[in-house]
Amino acid sequence: MTTGPVWHPISARDNPQLQRLRKLAQDATAYRKMGGVWLEGDHLARAALQRGLRPALALITDVAAADESLRALADQASKVLVVSPALFKTVSGLESPAQIGFDLQLPPPLRIEPQADSVVLDRLQDAGNVGTILRSAAALGFRQVLALKGTAALWSPKVLRAGMGAHFGLRLVEGLSVSDLDGLKVPLLATSSHTDALLHEAELPSPCAWVMGHEGQGVDEALMARCALRIGIPQPGGEESLNVASAASICLYESARRRLTRQG
Amino acid sequence: MTTGPVWHPISARDNPQLQRLRKLAQDATAYRKMGGVWLEGDHLARAALQRGLRPALALITDVAAADESLRALADQASKVLVVSPALFKTVSGLESPAQIGFDLQLPPPLRIEPQADSVVLDRLQDAGNVGTILRSAAALGFRQVLALKGTAALWSPKVLRAGMGAHFGLRLVEGLSVSDLDGLKVPLLATSSHTDALLHEAELPSPCAWVMGHEGQGVDEALMARCALRIGIPQPGGEESLNVASAASICLYESARRRLTRQG
Repeated sequence: MTTGPVWHPISARDNPQLQRLRKLAQDATAYRKMGGVWLEGDHLARAALQRGLRPALALITDVAAADESLRALADQASKVLVVSPALFKTVSGLESPAQIGFDLQLPPPLRIEPQADSVVLDRLQDAGNVGTILRSAAALGFRQVLALKGTAALWSPKVLRAGMGAHFGLRLVEGLSVSDLDGLKVPLLATSSHTDALLHEAELPSPCAWVMGHEGQGVDEALMARCALRIGIPQPGGEESLNVASAASICLYESARRRLTRQG
Repeated sequence: MTTGPVWHPISARDNPQLQRLRKLAQDATAYRKMGGVWLEGDHLARAALQRGLRPALALITDVAAADESLRALADQASKVLVVSPALFKTVSGLESPAQIGFDLQLPPPLRIEPQADSVVLDRLQDAGNVGTILRSAAALGFRQVLALKGTAALWSPKVLRAGMGAHFGLRLVEGLSVSDLDGLKVPLLATSSHTDALLHEAELPSPCAWVMGHEGQGVDEALMARCALRIGIPQPGGEESLNVASAASICLYESARRRLTRQG
């Protein structure tokens, strides 16, 4: 019989371990200084475990601890804190908090892989958009995501929630400047309304890096100048514009489709 | 010289006209009973005007009234209320409110157009997803969106914001039951993990209706039984899943691409 972690019941709101989790859960960039990320909910927790990651700590409600599968999930951590649902809510900060969360140490930052199919995020503001793009990148086989300075923090709780576990299957590098992209040796493709070609007609290099720009301002000029192609998404419906995560999903799909068609 | 609307300065927080706007702005389904929708911000306001709609009322801050183009925008309404930015914020309820908003009367509900390229929304919960799908539908030429009962209210302020004006270029019908779809005479296509075919290989009928399901539960069984095809989006990246608005954007793009390729 193996010995699981020790379970500690906690009832003091100002317990220092809860204070740490509260900061990780509610401050989007706290993980950068504190060396851990907050994974809330059993879906994210399982996604991390499936990739072989082991959390330093699990927080679970006393209610959830009565559920065998959630209890087994908490047992994967080195240490478990048990709290009331009300106390869990003060950590989570969500209107509908989950019943379990992990404090996961991130591995040291990765370097850019020069030849990888990539997505470059240029100052994307909305955490939901960023998480949705990570999810599409993972599903469509773009395994590296490079975020320029000014992009929503990739490991923030909101981006993690929207990413639905995609983070753990991706090579994520953030805090980059435009010149750091010198390290990326595949052609950059940008979506733009000033286009060289339309997506369905353009020759798409493979591997490549799709560049997605700021929701309001689009791709930065210095970055656009580095792009091999500016590609428009055909819009037979007329003058409308697309959400940036929709645009990214369409571009990544089109790249994936070309490859599958060549192979098939 | 034409006479514009009368401008009324308002400073009382409990003014009945402000109470009405507050309800429209902060209650997602209030428009269904109150016969008007709240359009916040100059982008949405302009999108409505471009489609020939004329608002019953504009609310503008005294600060914005000093801006000539915003003033001209407000002058398109039949009546204008001028308030302080603080009072505007009590109406908007947003953390970063805009400076202008319209109260727009909706035209009477439309019937299903039997032969139109359509998107069917089956109990989608997230207002951001719904608005993003409307935006993709408008851009990619799917002019009719049919929302089944239980879908986020299409004209709610959140869906309007995410839709970025797409509402005004679409034929929107909501509150439908599955059997109401008898009125739609084009084949229904659903995305599903239990698939008849993969998107990039499947024969796609045109016109058609793409069915998008509940974020957690997917497409309802009775509705799935009506679908002519169940289509999977190829995911060379592996086991990940896609956000429903990403999936919708990819499917609508693929339909649009096939048409453009046939025409081209």
